[in-house]
Amino acid sequence: MTSAKLTQQIEFLIEIDRLKGIIRQTLLTDGSRLENSAEHSWHLAMMAIVLKDYAPGSIDILRVIKMLLVHDLVEIYAGDTFCYDEAANQDKADRETAAATKLFSLLPESQGRELKELWQEFEAVQTAEAQFANALDRLQPFLQNWQTQGNTWQSHGINRQQVEQRMIPIKSGTPEIWPLVEQLIADCVERGFLRESIGD
Amino acid sequence: MTSAKLTQQIEFLIEIDRLKGIIRQTLLTDGSRLENSAEHSWHLAMMAIVLKDYAPGSIDILRVIKMLLVHDLVEIYAGDTFCYDEAANQDKADRETAAATKLFSLLPESQGRELKELWQEFEAVQTAEAQFANALDRLQPFLQNWQTQGNTWQSHGINRQQVEQRMIPIKSGTPEIWPLVEQLIADCVERGFLRESIGD
Repeated sequence: MTSAKLTQQIEFLIEIDRLKGIIRQTLLTDGSRLENSAEHSWHLAMMAIVLKDYAPGSIDILRVIKMLLVHDLVEIYAGDTFCYDEAANQDKADRETAAATKLFSLLPESQGRELKELWQEFEAVQTAEAQFANALDRLQPFLQNWQTQGNTWQSHGINRQQVEQRMIPIKSGTPEIWPLVEQLIADCVERGFLRESIGD
Repeated sequence: MTSAKLTQQIEFLIEIDRLKGIIRQTLLTDGSRLENSAEHSWHLAMMAIVLKDYAPGSIDILRVIKMLLVHDLVEIYAGDTFCYDEAANQDKADRETAAATKLFSLLPESQGRELKELWQEFEAVQTAEAQFANALDRLQPFLQNWQTQGNTWQSHGINRQQVEQRMIPIKSGTPEIWPLVEQLIADCVERGFLRESIGD
């Protein structure tokens, strides 16, 4: 007979399959379609493995990877909120907190609490692990946009200042990578992927 | 100026975006489309976190998660080989070894070697970590098939014996979950999702 604990865990694992259907604003690098939040989370976890030496000081890489794997799960109920959509971002925290309570309570209590705390840690951006994780979460879509002629920026009329503002967590989360980001922003403006200001 | 090391790492991280375009034979649980190998890898890493207490003995969960995140990367050059396709499986090892050499050599040498060794460990199924990881890699598509009325089995004329054979790694990799798998196989046969034998 299957234990109640295992039944809960399997139900949770089936439920989170829905993250594969949450569509983001970022194109795949081949331009074929928009990315979903499950494959985005996989990509971020791979970035954490490959770029761990650029984290600010000593970090627990296991906690970073877990944080990145779970950081978008709340979108299953709250949807993906486009980072440059100011109106939608006003109630984002409330919607996502309700979603976290609903989703993580599917799991056995202590396990649900652990994953919810990882999500909260990511959102609070206070620990070195969360700062590193947040930097990667900014860097990945930035690189995809650089690879796809600024598709998201073009589609939504985003300008240089907005992108620079959005990338600020990279300064503290992966400081050695910041000069590359500055250089790529300038490159994107020069090549017409990103407009200099609102009037352009 | 960006270091040669960072340049290599960024190029690798852009290249692996292609895993999102490698299509598997498994449907998402909502039946909307076939799954890709990047989101599949994310799902397996989440399973490792949630089901780690069912691993055979003491394991290094970080190594398991890393192994699962990288285990399908070779498909970027070698393609996804359907597990029940006997002909395609004959040269799978050779194709994937060549792909591993090509892909992991994009990275700085020691890092490329580490990821290649993780992939080799997964493939060899000798360590407790690899046994646990392989069990999850069998369990996840099985659960998706159970959720989608045996779609993959129906499409390819797969029978009970083939599925039981394919699920054997679960016996040693997550022994406590094996009774549930046996029960679900019987359930799938009873509900007509899976045929009893070739003649059915």
